Amino acid sequence: MKKYLTVLFAVISAASLIAQEFKTHSEEHYKYILDLIRNEALTEQRGYLWLEELCNDIGPRLSGSENYSKSVDWAVNKFKAMGVDTVWTQHVMVPYWVRGSVEYAEISESNEYKGKELSIAALGGSIGTPGNGLTAEVIEVNNFEELRALGEQVKGKIVFFNKKFDVSLLHSFSGYGANVGLRVQGAIEAAKQGAAAVLLRSITSKNDDVPHTGVMRYADSLKLIPAAALGVKSSDLLSEALSSDPRLKVTIKMDCKTYPDTDSWSVIADIKGTEKPNEIIVVGGHWDSWDKGCGAHDDGAPCIQTMEVLDLFKRLGIKPKRTIRCVLFANEENGLRGGVAYGRYADNHPTEKHIGAIESDRGVYTPRGFNVDTDEQTIEQMQAWLPILNGTHINYIKKGGSGADVGQIKSAKVLAGYVPDAVRYFDVHHSGNDTFDSVHPLEMQWGTTAIAMFAYFMSEEL
Amino acid sequence: MKKYLTVLFAVISAASLIAQEFKTHSEEHYKYILDLIRNEALTEQRGYLWLEELCNDIGPRLSGSENYSKSVDWAVNKFKAMGVDTVWTQHVMVPYWVRGSVEYAEISESNEYKGKELSIAALGGSIGTPGNGLTAEVIEVNNFEELRALGEQVKGKIVFFNKKFDVSLLHSFSGYGANVGLRVQGAIEAAKQGAAAVLLRSITSKNDDVPHTGVMRYADSLKLIPAAALGVKSSDLLSEALSSDPRLKVTIKMDCKTYPDTDSWSVIADIKGTEKPNEIIVVGGHWDSWDKGCGAHDDGAPCIQTMEVLDLFKRLGIKPKRTIRCVLFANEENGLRGGVAYGRYADNHPTEKHIGAIESDRGVYTPRGFNVDTDEQTIEQMQAWLPILNGTHINYIKKGGSGADVGQIKSAKVLAGYVPDAVRYFDVHHSGNDTFDSVHPLEMQWGTTAIAMFAYFMSEEL
Repeated sequence: MKKYLTVLFAVISAASLIAQEFKTHSEEHYKYILDLIRNEALTEQRGYLWLEELCNDIGPRLSGSENYSKSVDWAVNKFKAMGVDTVWTQHVMVPYWVRGSVEYAEISESNEYKGKELSIAALGGSIGTPGNGLTAEVIEVNNFEELRALGEQVKGKIVFFNKKFDVSLLHSFSGYGANVGLRVQGAIEAAKQGAAAVLLRSITSKNDDVPHTGVMRYADSLKLIPAAALGVKSSDLLSEALSSDPRLKVTIKMDCKTYPDTDSWSVIADIKGTEKPNEIIVVGGHWDSWDKGCGAHDDGAPCIQTMEVLDLFKRLGIKPKRTIRCVLFANEENGLRGGVAYGRYADNHPTEKHIGAIESDRGVYTPRGFNVDTDEQTIEQMQAWLPILNGTHINYIKKGGSGADVGQIKSAKVLAGYVPDAVRYFDVHHSGNDTFDSVHPLEMQWGTTAIAMFAYFMSEEL
Repeated sequence: MKKYLTVLFAVISAASLIAQEFKTHSEEHYKYILDLIRNEALTEQRGYLWLEELCNDIGPRLSGSENYSKSVDWAVNKFKAMGVDTVWTQHVMVPYWVRGSVEYAEISESNEYKGKELSIAALGGSIGTPGNGLTAEVIEVNNFEELRALGEQVKGKIVFFNKKFDVSLLHSFSGYGANVGLRVQGAIEAAKQGAAAVLLRSITSKNDDVPHTGVMRYADSLKLIPAAALGVKSSDLLSEALSSDPRLKVTIKMDCKTYPDTDSWSVIADIKGTEKPNEIIVVGGHWDSWDKGCGAHDDGAPCIQTMEVLDLFKRLGIKPKRTIRCVLFANEENGLRGGVAYGRYADNHPTEKHIGAIESDRGVYTPRGFNVDTDEQTIEQMQAWLPILNGTHINYIKKGGSGADVGQIKSAKVLAGYVPDAVRYFDVHHSGNDTFDSVHPLEMQWGTTAIAMFAYFMSEEL
C-alpha cells in the first residue's frame, strides 16, 4: 500500500502545483480577494446585523402574509442602499394559509391523564377543527404500513404518527427525509381509512416540547382532516398515556384556514458583470418562512448571506466579469411558486444565459462544503478551487443536490448547494426555536465568506 | 490542467481501492465496528448524561479544590461501574490558588463615568488587592511595545491591555494565541515599569460582558501586582471612558490567594489488550478546569468523550488487541503537573510501550479532523482510515500538534489531537459561559464516535 500511496501523494503534489494555474486570474489574486472578503465579512458582520433587523422589526415571513410583503420592501431597500445595478420583483400567486389564533390540545378523557395539555402546531395547509374542538380516541403508529394493517380500527380516530427522529445518521437531512413523508402524506393516508385527524411527532433532533410545523397535503377525492405537529415531550407523554389507557380521548382545537391564492414576489438584484454581463451567476435562497420563530436559519440568514455577497463586492470594489444576481425566492415552503417562476424566466430568456447558481438553504452553521450538480469534468475543474476555499472552512466540493429553488433553473451549467454543518439544524427547523438567538454571528459570516468566494470563482473560472 | 487532474483522479481511485486493504481486519469489519459505536453513542448519549451529572452534582474542578477531589472519586466510580480491567490514581502535587469571595471593580473617580461597574475575574495565580481595594489611574495599551514606549508614565497605574480578539482568522486558536501572551506575561511586563495592577480585555470571540480567566505568571525578581480579566463590554466602556477622561481612576477589589502546593491525582483506567496488553493507546484530556462555569467544554466533556470510549468498547463487546487507556490528567490549566508526571511514568516504564495517544481538549463541537504528530510515512498510512472516519464527520488527518498533556509522552510513536469545529470555542473558554447548557448532545456524541473509532484504528492498525 505504501508504494501506491507514495505515488498518489507525488501526483497530488504535482496536481497542487497545476491547480494553481487558474484560467482567469492568478492564485495570488484569489488569495487577495479571499482576504478582503474574509476580513470584511467577519469583522463587520453586516449580514448578522441585517438578520437582527429582519427578526426584530419584521419577524417570520409566511407566504401571503403582511410580514412577507414588508420583508420584500425591506430587501428591495437594502439592495438599493448597496447601490446594485438593478433590483426588481417578480410577481407570483401563492397559497395563502393562516394559522389563526386558536391552537390547543389536551387529553380530555382519561382517568390518570385527563387535563394534560399537549403542545401542538397546525401543519401548514391544515384545515381547522370545529369551534368546540374535535374529540376522539387516539391510535398510535410509526408508519403507513402499521396504519394500513389497522384497517377499520382507524375510523373516527386521531392517528398519532410517533416515529422518532434517527439522530444516529451521519447527515441530519437523512433523518428528516426518513420522517417527512408522514408529515406531507399523513392526512391523506389517514383519511383513506376514515380517521378524524392526525397528530405527528415533531420531526426534530431536539428533546424539548416545541412543535415543528411544515407543509402537508390533501387529496381532493378524500375528506380533509385536521393535522398538527406535536412536541417531542408531548409525544412521549401521549404515548405513555396510551400504554396505560388506550381508550383515552384527545381534544384538538385549531382555527387555521386556507384562503384563495394571493400576490407575492421574489426579489431580484444584479451587479452587472464587467465582461460578460449577459452571463448570470445566481446566489439566493427562499425569502418566505414558516410562521413560528422568525425563520432565522430557514431561510432568513441564508438569504442574507447571499444578499451580502453583492454588498461585499460593492463595498470592496470587487468587479466580477459575469453578472452576480441575488434571487430571494417567494414561497418555497408551501408551493415553490417563486422557484418555478424564476426557473421558467431564466430558461426562456432571450439574451441572458445562466452559467451557475448557488442556493443557501441549510441553515447558517460553520461551512463544510458545496454540493454541485453538473458533469464530472466540471466538478474536477471546480475542485481545483479547494485550496483557496479551505480558507473559509470548506472541506469539499462534490456531486450532490443543489436546492429546491435553484434546481428549477434547468439551463444552468452548474447548480450548487452550500452545505454548512447540519448537526443542529433540525433542532430549530420550522419551529419556535428558529430565532435570531439561535444564529451564531461567526458561523453565519464564515458561510457568507465561503459563498462569496465560491460565487466569485464561478464568475471568473467556469 | 484537465489532463493532469484526470490522471490524479485515476490514481486516487486506484489508491482508494488499495486503502481498503487494512493490516489487521477487513474494511467490512471496521464499517461494522463504526456502525456499532455510532448507533450506541448517538442514541444512548451516555457521555452527555454523565456531563450533566458532573456539572450539576460537582461543578468546576480547579486544581487543589474540594470539587476536584470529588470529581476524582466520581471518575474512579464511573470506571469501576464500566468494569474496566484496572483503575488507579497517580498522585501529583499541584498549585493551589483560590479565587476567594471578593471580586469587584468600578470607575471610582470621574465626572461622567463615576460609579460605573466593571465586570472582572481575577486571573489564575493573581494576588489579591488590599482589603479596601486598589485605586489608580489607568493607561490603555494594545501590546508590550506600546507599554514599553510609555516608560515612566506607567508607574503607579493600572495597565489596561485592550487588544481585540481577531475573529477573522480561520482558526480561532490563532486568535487566542495572538493575545494569550498578554495574559500570561502581562503582570511581569507591567511590573517592570512599576505598574500597580493589570486589567486584560477578555480573550474571547463573544461580544458580552462575561470575563474569561486563565493562567498568569509572576517573576520572582519583580513586585507581584494584581491582574484581572475584564469583560468585553466593560473593556469597551473603560476605553470609551478613558478617551473622554484620561485621568479617571478605577478601584479593584479581589481577595484571591495562592496557598502552598497540595495533593492532586490523575485518574487512569485500562481495558487490557487481547493480543498486545503491554502496548498502550492513551485517550484522555485534563480533568481540572477553571473555576468559572463548570468547565464543560474545557475540559469536562472532552474528558468524558474519552471515558466513554472505554465504556463503549466494554458494553459493545469490542476487544482491541492493544490496551486502551483513559488518562484524566491533573492540573493542565495552571501547572501541567499531571501531564508531566504521566509522561515521565510512560517514558520510563519497564514493560509498557506507548504506541499512540489522543488528546481531546478543544471543546466538543462537531468533528472536523485529527492532528497527528508523527513521521510522514505514518501519517500517510493513517490517512487510509479516512474513508471510514468520514462516517463520523471527520474530514482530515494531518500533521499538527496533539495537546499539552499527551505531548509529554515523548516515547509514543503517534501523538494525536482531536479537532472539532472551533468557531464557538472561545465564546465559552475559561468563563462563566462554559456550562452544561453550552454543550450540544449530538455534537459531543459525534466527537465520542470519532475518537473511539480513531482509537480502535490506532490499536489495530498502527
